[in-house]
Amino acid sequence: MIYDVIIVGSGPAGLAAAIYAQRARLSALVLEKEYMSGGQVVNTYEVDNYPGLPGIGGFELGMKFREHAEKLGAQFVNIEVRHIALEDEGRIKVVYTDGEEYRARTLILAMGASYRHLGVPGEKELTGMGVSYCATCDGAFFKGRKVAVVGGGDVAVEDALFLARGCERVYLIHRRDELRAAGILQEQLKKCENVEFLWDTEVVSIPGEDHVECVKIRNKKDGTERVLDIDGVFIAVGTIPNTGIVTKLLHLDDNGCIVASEDGVTEIPGIFAAGDLRTKQLRQIVTAVADGANVITSVQTYLNTL
Amino acid sequence: MIYDVIIVGSGPAGLAAAIYAQRARLSALVLEKEYMSGGQVVNTYEVDNYPGLPGIGGFELGMKFREHAEKLGAQFVNIEVRHIALEDEGRIKVVYTDGEEYRARTLILAMGASYRHLGVPGEKELTGMGVSYCATCDGAFFKGRKVAVVGGGDVAVEDALFLARGCERVYLIHRRDELRAAGILQEQLKKCENVEFLWDTEVVSIPGEDHVECVKIRNKKDGTERVLDIDGVFIAVGTIPNTGIVTKLLHLDDNGCIVASEDGVTEIPGIFAAGDLRTKQLRQIVTAVADGANVITSVQTYLNTL
Repeated sequence: MIYDVIIVGSGPAGLAAAIYAQRARLSALVLEKEYMSGGQVVNTYEVDNYPGLPGIGGFELGMKFREHAEKLGAQFVNIEVRHIALEDEGRIKVVYTDGEEYRARTLILAMGASYRHLGVPGEKELTGMGVSYCATCDGAFFKGRKVAVVGGGDVAVEDALFLARGCERVYLIHRRDELRAAGILQEQLKKCENVEFLWDTEVVSIPGEDHVECVKIRNKKDGTERVLDIDGVFIAVGTIPNTGIVTKLLHLDDNGCIVASEDGVTEIPGIFAAGDLRTKQLRQIVTAVADGANVITSVQTYLNTL
Repeated sequence: MIYDVIIVGSGPAGLAAAIYAQRARLSALVLEKEYMSGGQVVNTYEVDNYPGLPGIGGFELGMKFREHAEKLGAQFVNIEVRHIALEDEGRIKVVYTDGEEYRARTLILAMGASYRHLGVPGEKELTGMGVSYCATCDGAFFKGRKVAVVGGGDVAVEDALFLARGCERVYLIHRRDELRAAGILQEQLKKCENVEFLWDTEVVSIPGEDHVECVKIRNKKDGTERVLDIDGVFIAVGTIPNTGIVTKLLHLDDNGCIVASEDGVTEIPGIFAAGDLRTKQLRQIVTAVADGANVITSVQTYLNTL
């Protein structure tokens, strides 16, 4: 079977594309590495900026997107994509997975983005043993204990706020002297008495035998090093686009993003990009979802030319 | 007082901008002509393509956006904007209304779009007396009667579907030989036994003394004219951007849209466009809402340069 469209990824962008594909009566298939492979939404404690659903849990919002797509009849296959190739002078896109091969006239790349690592000694070794990239997932294990959050954006501040509710003490370690996070979040965090801000500070290493024992930090201005006695380190220093399977197929920008504007059109006719993995100013659930809608319009326009 | 940002319009784009402005802790004011002046959403019977809220009523969705913005503290003034000017070498934007003048460092134009008219005899005279632009609003008055819907897009087909549930007979008048509407909608409509499609057909006039008595139509292919005995005409031939207040300020495209990409940046520094009134491929609630989020990022970037 040759589908009208195959959607790779089932985060907000992929699910919105699935919703719009069903409404457009396209034959469509969603390939997902894991259930709700987008991941970033379902791992978010609370989402307060998806208009119409204030204060909803990230997991709940992800499920709502999923149910919406399924209600309209969207088809999902749980499999990892390995490689993408072109056939028939580019008219057919072939998706190679761990098992089956799938063919379609158009392809939507919606693999999202993943957590960025610090790259310091101990980080990899102690992941899951005190090093975490998701306060929502792992924060509860550190109730009444001391933790550090690394980063200065919305996610870092949200994580610190979340952790401050249950932990004895939260250190916010940031390499600059001001936060990038939204003002409303910064204000909230500054009100927390058990939060300490460590400015101009970077993590040197995360020592520990079979679990995190402390974190070694360095002040970037005066070079002094210090050891913080903590039990957990939450790393929230951003994300990197999951574009590994298309590095040979498409030109990527310096950050690894697929170069595409809001219509999702890439340099290859019939291949489209939606969500956090494309070049854009603002990576949010609502902009990912809008991408999913937009890209189906682009798919229809392209299919009409065949 | 000089606000950080004034948002003109309170449809999905304006309300999303208000939500993001509150979260960014900007001093913001929303000016709206009418309560939820965006209008198009609140007049929609059912919205099934806003991800996460399948099958929600348009009015209910509009209220959810509104409540979300109000919950975060957004401020609204119910007043009509007449004119926009620049002061202090463009650094201050002045909004002239029916009453007060308002000043801000940035301005978000989110006035949306309005119903397009056919421009035929009888249309204007009989608006509200059988001529309607909103099946959701007025359809119930025509229960058990005969109506015509004019148009071929999603809205026309949605209107026809809605009317077919209660009316004796629904004529879909379309000037082309195929519909632009989504496949899923077309299929549904073709299943309705009380719906008749009139292809390649245009409305000549809408005769009637103090209410619609019939509609005179012409087949564009053979030129034959015919009179349809109906009680109501629902006109769904698209929308036009509400950009009247900025025609002298900004360059508009041939359709009257403000030329701006997804970041909403216009040719005037500090003035941004969001939603249906800007140049874009897909005008949907979800793309309007994404615009609202995006444009606040652009506002912050601009404010940081002052």
